[in-house]
Amino acid sequence: MDLRHNEIEGNSEPTQSLGQTSHLALDIGGSLIKVVYFSISRDNCIDREQESSANDTLGFSNGNCKHPILQGRLHFAKFETSKINDCLEFISSKKLHLGGFQHHENPGKNKNFIKATGGGAYKFTELFKENLGIDLDKEDEMDCLVAGANFLLKAVHHEAYTYIDGQKEFVQIDQNDLYPYLLVNIGSGVSMIKVDGDGKFERVSGTNVGGGTFWGLGRLLTKCKSFDELLELSHQGNNRVIDMLVGDIYGGMDYSKIGLLSTTIASSFGKAVSDNKELEDYKPEDVARSLLRMISNNIGQISYLNALRFGLKRIFFGGFFIRGQPYTMDTISVAVHFWSKGEAKAMFLQHEGFLGALGAYVSYAKHSIDDLVCNQSMQLPVSASYTADPNYNPLNGDFNDNESIQCSVYAA
Amino acid sequence: MDLRHNEIEGNSEPTQSLGQTSHLALDIGGSLIKVVYFSISRDNCIDREQESSANDTLGFSNGNCKHPILQGRLHFAKFETSKINDCLEFISSKKLHLGGFQHHENPGKNKNFIKATGGGAYKFTELFKENLGIDLDKEDEMDCLVAGANFLLKAVHHEAYTYIDGQKEFVQIDQNDLYPYLLVNIGSGVSMIKVDGDGKFERVSGTNVGGGTFWGLGRLLTKCKSFDELLELSHQGNNRVIDMLVGDIYGGMDYSKIGLLSTTIASSFGKAVSDNKELEDYKPEDVARSLLRMISNNIGQISYLNALRFGLKRIFFGGFFIRGQPYTMDTISVAVHFWSKGEAKAMFLQHEGFLGALGAYVSYAKHSIDDLVCNQSMQLPVSASYTADPNYNPLNGDFNDNESIQCSVYAA
Repeated sequence: MDLRHNEIEGNSEPTQSLGQTSHLALDIGGSLIKVVYFSISRDNCIDREQESSANDTLGFSNGNCKHPILQGRLHFAKFETSKINDCLEFISSKKLHLGGFQHHENPGKNKNFIKATGGGAYKFTELFKENLGIDLDKEDEMDCLVAGANFLLKAVHHEAYTYIDGQKEFVQIDQNDLYPYLLVNIGSGVSMIKVDGDGKFERVSGTNVGGGTFWGLGRLLTKCKSFDELLELSHQGNNRVIDMLVGDIYGGMDYSKIGLLSTTIASSFGKAVSDNKELEDYKPEDVARSLLRMISNNIGQISYLNALRFGLKRIFFGGFFIRGQPYTMDTISVAVHFWSKGEAKAMFLQHEGFLGALGAYVSYAKHSIDDLVCNQSMQLPVSASYTADPNYNPLNGDFNDNESIQCSVYAA
Repeated sequence: MDLRHNEIEGNSEPTQSLGQTSHLALDIGGSLIKVVYFSISRDNCIDREQESSANDTLGFSNGNCKHPILQGRLHFAKFETSKINDCLEFISSKKLHLGGFQHHENPGKNKNFIKATGGGAYKFTELFKENLGIDLDKEDEMDCLVAGANFLLKAVHHEAYTYIDGQKEFVQIDQNDLYPYLLVNIGSGVSMIKVDGDGKFERVSGTNVGGGTFWGLGRLLTKCKSFDELLELSHQGNNRVIDMLVGDIYGGMDYSKIGLLSTTIASSFGKAVSDNKELEDYKPEDVARSLLRMISNNIGQISYLNALRFGLKRIFFGGFFIRGQPYTMDTISVAVHFWSKGEAKAMFLQHEGFLGALGAYVSYAKHSIDDLVCNQSMQLPVSASYTADPNYNPLNGDFNDNESIQCSVYAA
């Protein structure tokens, strides 16, 4: 374990020593807790050379070093932050917290460390200590978002895609031509980060109109009990019932002189001004649809304006707001395309919701991202060079969840 | 009347000939109809020289030309577009429609023209014809907004002001250093216009999150019956009840690394996500406050980002959303100041809601704006050089409304 130990010693947290490797990392946001954990499917030691043929097909060269290897999957789970006890129970029942780091300064206490990011890593420190006996080792939220995005964009095949006219198209990222890009993470609020390289970034903007706004306003307006229910509802709705369109103002005509079609939304929820209706008189699905459109469009516009400032052509959208929803992605894509006159491109990520948690996970070793090899389970069985605890017990259970990433983890 | 006739002949509407001068102009928007009309308080002819001393104190030089003059006021009125009949009645009762232009091609029909802008000028053409027997002579909405803003900024003393830390401070506009500026008109929707001179402008952006969104969403959420009621309600509210602050996520701490205070709003309405509350459990005033803050902040941010694109230091906010509300102006000012790091300045206009209607009014003559002299009634009794119909009967009634502008109108 010397190599890894030294790497950790060399970073900004020299007081910690690694007794064992964790398989769990958390991103505790304002609305959701995102969990990433590793499960072992084959724990036999193999030689990296044995894998070279498989990796060669991906263009990765692992070299000839010999290490014990754990093959398995990275799994993803989420919980509502307001139901944090469900998360604690989940971790406890799967014993995910037992693979953490030990305090260097208090080896006798045998306290475990779990990497955690997001504001909740601060807010819920005591709760985790009391319930699971673990310390949350806090990683900066922006650091983690960027590390997670870079990891996914570099290591995971078929991660990024565009969504245009209902067509999802995977984008093969040229690792030599990845930077700079704008990362827009849509959580409860929205952060916009200009990324120039590994660990090189600046949070250039953000907006308080984000996923929490959609869900919060949506709950109040529709009485939906969950984010998923609200999104599902929005599929069936028609935003034109409540939104004031250019045509509503111009008597059905375009305002063509400035390029506004009659179908362009002039004012979100603007029809509610003059309709003599109460909230109950509108269908909840129409309300949900207008709200989704309003917020997606707004985020798309502010993202584009920030990309423009720095001449960024690619905008990657992450965070738990999008959820692969066609209407959301379409609205964002159209907004970016419209405002940038086709100059900038909106791209989405398969594991969009877990950037922060993945960033916290890869922060255990602070390996160079370039060394990681990982591929989505449904695509190709591949390996990730990553340090893991060979003494860790493989988890029982079925891990065929769609979002999981098949990985091989190398114990250094 | 030759001069004026020629001027009109020289513009893009050569088929019209002016028989008499109108004293009424309309801006019919998605939510509100804005009316500007002129009333005569003294209809004696005076020499412009007689006024030179008053004007000299303002730095205006009117020269020595002799013209009949009408002294009076420009008045402002508004109606909800959904209650357009109230507007028709108002015009009819005051006989404001009787001073319009006559059709050149149909002099026998004696049809009057009224200058009108906004989408409703198209939508309600027939309604005005049927009810008042007048044709709406349509002026482009953006043309009118810019003409109205330029008119106010150049001709009206104490028109523009900043609002910082609760302090309203009038800004003396140097007419030689007015351009370029960003004009942000917040009506039902929002238009953002880069203004480079008289009639020289480009609509560079806009957003569908505007006054109609505030009012529409606000109605649905609070059951308020009017925009004014909703604004009034918002005064008493506390947005922190529903908004998710950085401190709510970070356990009361700042996220100081990226400069976010614990009191910064991370997610508008984000607390409604986790509070186990229905809409009825929140106070309407808190909801109204959060909504006002969300929309004001959002408009401020998008405005700044557009000002930044073009290196514009001054942003003038117009439209009927702001209404001189301290909280609205404070939020917009802070947003512009925060995002621009103090580089850009938000400014507000005393007659913010009537830019389009004023622009339609001044379009009758298409005089050079530089010739106009006009001052707010409460400040100084001044004159505006403007062509008016000397045969027009002065209106009866009391015109001490606060928003009126005292003017002198010259019949050419």
